[in-house]
Amino acid sequence: MGTQRVYNFAAGPSQLPLEVLERAQKEMLNYHSSGMSVMEMSHRSSIFHSIYVHTDEAFRKVMNVPDNYDVLYLTGGGSTQFAMVPMNLIGRTKKADYALTGNFSEKAYEEAKRYGNVRVAFSDKENGYHHIPRQGEIVVDPDASYFHYCANNTIYGTEWHYVPDTGNVPLVADMSSDITSAKVDVSKFALIYAGAQKNMAPAGVTVVILRKDLDLRPLSYTPTMLRYKTHIDKESMYNTPPCWQIYMLGLQMDWILEQGGIDEMERRKKERAGLLYGTLDNSSLFKLHADKESRSYMNVTFRTGDDSLDKEFVAEAAEQGLVSLAGHRLTKGMRASIYNAMPVEGVKKLCGFIETFDAAHRKG
Amino acid sequence: MGTQRVYNFAAGPSQLPLEVLERAQKEMLNYHSSGMSVMEMSHRSSIFHSIYVHTDEAFRKVMNVPDNYDVLYLTGGGSTQFAMVPMNLIGRTKKADYALTGNFSEKAYEEAKRYGNVRVAFSDKENGYHHIPRQGEIVVDPDASYFHYCANNTIYGTEWHYVPDTGNVPLVADMSSDITSAKVDVSKFALIYAGAQKNMAPAGVTVVILRKDLDLRPLSYTPTMLRYKTHIDKESMYNTPPCWQIYMLGLQMDWILEQGGIDEMERRKKERAGLLYGTLDNSSLFKLHADKESRSYMNVTFRTGDDSLDKEFVAEAAEQGLVSLAGHRLTKGMRASIYNAMPVEGVKKLCGFIETFDAAHRKG
Repeated sequence: MGTQRVYNFAAGPSQLPLEVLERAQKEMLNYHSSGMSVMEMSHRSSIFHSIYVHTDEAFRKVMNVPDNYDVLYLTGGGSTQFAMVPMNLIGRTKKADYALTGNFSEKAYEEAKRYGNVRVAFSDKENGYHHIPRQGEIVVDPDASYFHYCANNTIYGTEWHYVPDTGNVPLVADMSSDITSAKVDVSKFALIYAGAQKNMAPAGVTVVILRKDLDLRPLSYTPTMLRYKTHIDKESMYNTPPCWQIYMLGLQMDWILEQGGIDEMERRKKERAGLLYGTLDNSSLFKLHADKESRSYMNVTFRTGDDSLDKEFVAEAAEQGLVSLAGHRLTKGMRASIYNAMPVEGVKKLCGFIETFDAAHRKG
Repeated sequence: MGTQRVYNFAAGPSQLPLEVLERAQKEMLNYHSSGMSVMEMSHRSSIFHSIYVHTDEAFRKVMNVPDNYDVLYLTGGGSTQFAMVPMNLIGRTKKADYALTGNFSEKAYEEAKRYGNVRVAFSDKENGYHHIPRQGEIVVDPDASYFHYCANNTIYGTEWHYVPDTGNVPLVADMSSDITSAKVDVSKFALIYAGAQKNMAPAGVTVVILRKDLDLRPLSYTPTMLRYKTHIDKESMYNTPPCWQIYMLGLQMDWILEQGGIDEMERRKKERAGLLYGTLDNSSLFKLHADKESRSYMNVTFRTGDDSLDKEFVAEAAEQGLVSLAGHRLTKGMRASIYNAMPVEGVKKLCGFIETFDAAHRKG
């Protein structure tokens, strides 16, 4: 390696487009002749305001966010949203439904229990989180204040390939690991949230998209900073926002638009995943964690069944500049996260490595 | 301006040392031959862990943090701490004392009211926040779970020049705007917090220093992410931390140590403030907001008494590369924030401008 950049398959924080990093580097000491770095600007200055407005416009364009939705740029990650969602939304009926399809949806559910009567509308936990439910497998309580699910499960490598129909129950989704990777009909949702560090920006900004007519009923003890209304009223400037990440998010949204927008991201997503799953399906050495119809296009989880051989795979791949392929401790084996910023060349190189490794180690 | 960097007197986010920005720029695409940017690294990777450990060690060294204190690197800013402090500390006696010396201490007090019986131990509000209490002016309830104050008031330009004695009542301080500017005896405090964006790093990381034997009693509804214990147990890695800001904070702590450490910061702080207050005291045109013995060494607030003349001052200064001198809407006039990263040359240039402006506009 040394002076070479690597292909980084980390689950998040994760690879950013080189063009985005280069532009940030170039503008770093003196942004647009302001005489200062974006990191030094008052969040109340007109120059930072123009950066904020640009990011917001570009994000809305990429995601095709309807005008009757607010978009907030907060901190605290998905983990803080696990509390914010119930603290602001469960007040209507004191009840909420959660679909459990992985580690993070389970954490969201556990957190929500503090704030009301929370019900499991689907769980694949006993099965080891291999499977995403079909519509008919989900039982929605019509009296729930909302229905919550996690659209892509980074740890288990499963992804919802449709938006569940919950009737009149407001739909809330954690899209931390697949937002901006494919077209989504935002109008179907009451609220979408996403930590940006997987598919959009460096760690430190959390995007929330929420419908303007949402019935916000913060519980009495909800902190000011954990009330959506605080941030809606001040356009995410109630306190100092994570200015640098908002700027970087804007650069990455610009990059998406330059590349052809969300349709092109979706095409590339399918191309990358198709190549990688195709290679793994052709191998007798590797087994996939996810059921075939539940496979994630963002995080591909696989293993040989032999922990020491898995370690060998990860170490040898790293020597070839294919890094951060070790799986999460819950699933072990390997995980290749292939977000928007991963070029198809990186996936092709990984496929080649898999084929070589397979040939050297398969039995019979 | 154009290609020139300016002297940036913003109250925060604010100027960073040029050397720090240059180093970050140089390392931006490929940190230490890792083949990736710090913004792309998994927070669980060994390379990011070494960055985290380095930042923590450097910060502890700068602030001379005793071993019986934890240091956390969180998000959410001081505004989130306004809730976290009572949500974790007020449980002991359900009571807490607050000294009100400005806008942010008032906000902290208002937020704490949700969580217990909160009492004003001192207030200068009716006087317009010109004054920091002397020890004798503070009345501490010995049964309070803690006593909270804000060490430096950015908006009003006042600063506590001593650490109040609260007997056996645990002492909590918001040091967002003067942390690392002068030596502090950390052992006098139960907990110190600081948004980093004024004197330490770009916006997006909040540092909390807390004594290990602190009686943490989170209220039942305190979200997981707002419990100090969550972050203590996981060394600030319960969820994805703001990796880039942690890295930048480390670079700035390195810079402080290279410059001579906290003693040198304190010398410079007094030099900068001495020059600026001296110039303003010599002028008949400008009036200072703060009482003389309460003056902040970080934020110097002054005005002519004529709003349109103040605007002229701010605009003319900006033309000379002395930017962001407009005062907060609550105090109007001018505010010069002179944090660690402001070179004495910037203050001298501002003093020269003040003298010229004074000569051109004073009466008689």
